[in-house]
Amino acid sequence: MFTHILAPYDGSKNADRALEKAAEMAKLTGARVTVLTVFRHHSMLEASLSMVRVSDPGRIDDAMREHAAGIVTHAKNMLIEAGVEDVRGFVRSGRPARAINEFAARHGVDLIIVGSRGLGASGDGYLLGSVSHKVTGLSKCPVLVV
Amino acid sequence: MFTHILAPYDGSKNADRALEKAAEMAKLTGARVTVLTVFRHHSMLEASLSMVRVSDPGRIDDAMREHAAGIVTHAKNMLIEAGVEDVRGFVRSGRPARAINEFAARHGVDLIIVGSRGLGASGDGYLLGSVSHKVTGLSKCPVLVV
Repeated sequence: MFTHILAPYDGSKNADRALEKAAEMAKLTGARVTVLTVFRHHSMLEASLSMVRVSDPGRIDDAMREHAAGIVTHAKNMLIEAGVEDVRGFVRSGRPARAINEFAARHGVDLIIVGSRGLGASGDGYLLGSVSHKVTGLSKCPVLVV
Repeated sequence: MFTHILAPYDGSKNADRALEKAAEMAKLTGARVTVLTVFRHHSMLEASLSMVRVSDPGRIDDAMREHAAGIVTHAKNMLIEAGVEDVRGFVRSGRPARAINEFAARHGVDLIIVGSRGLGASGDGYLLGSVSHKVTGLSKCPVLVV
């Protein structure tokens, strides 16, 4: 019934629970699971508001991207250990909900599985954040909120 | 992975799509499917705002309950025709999202499957309405928004 599950992942406990459900669902249906971690650009606006100027904002983006890639690898390993056969992982930058839904639309995703609250709920939402509501509202395919 | 699926149903096209997914998921997992239709009481406030006074508001509730029961029966038949073995149906009155989540908590539901938009989206939401957001926000168990 599902062939391509997208699991947006930010490393939070809720995202872990969502990932477990993604693994169960994949084993039940034989679907591929794609892990996606989205980070936000360090914008010029943020830079201008900061008390500390960074001489090279690109380095912050690089650090964010590297951190996000580590999170994706962790999630992929969890899925593989859980017995999922077809696992892929991607990092994107931008607005989380929009990036997730664009990815889903472009890659033939037919189920998105998200945690009900991400890191955003605790005020630390620079990766996924509490975007499950936005994802659900924007999505063209079914969304499982865990 | 799921044993008891709750399918809130209001007869809308989106609810039909959600019901189809509920049938697929039930056949995949062997879960029971419970159909739930919620109608709102004809309140005294509404009665006082109406240009037409109803002498016996209880009769309106009776008519609503009967209509809702017909919708539940329709949904149950759809599920049975789709090959689901364990199908039940209930009618409740009250606030849809709250009634759905209370039912889920009391009856060991481990997955709620709702349409992304109910009749409420077209301004005719006296049964389920556009409550998927509220259900998702309040639910203690996973919610699949179709």
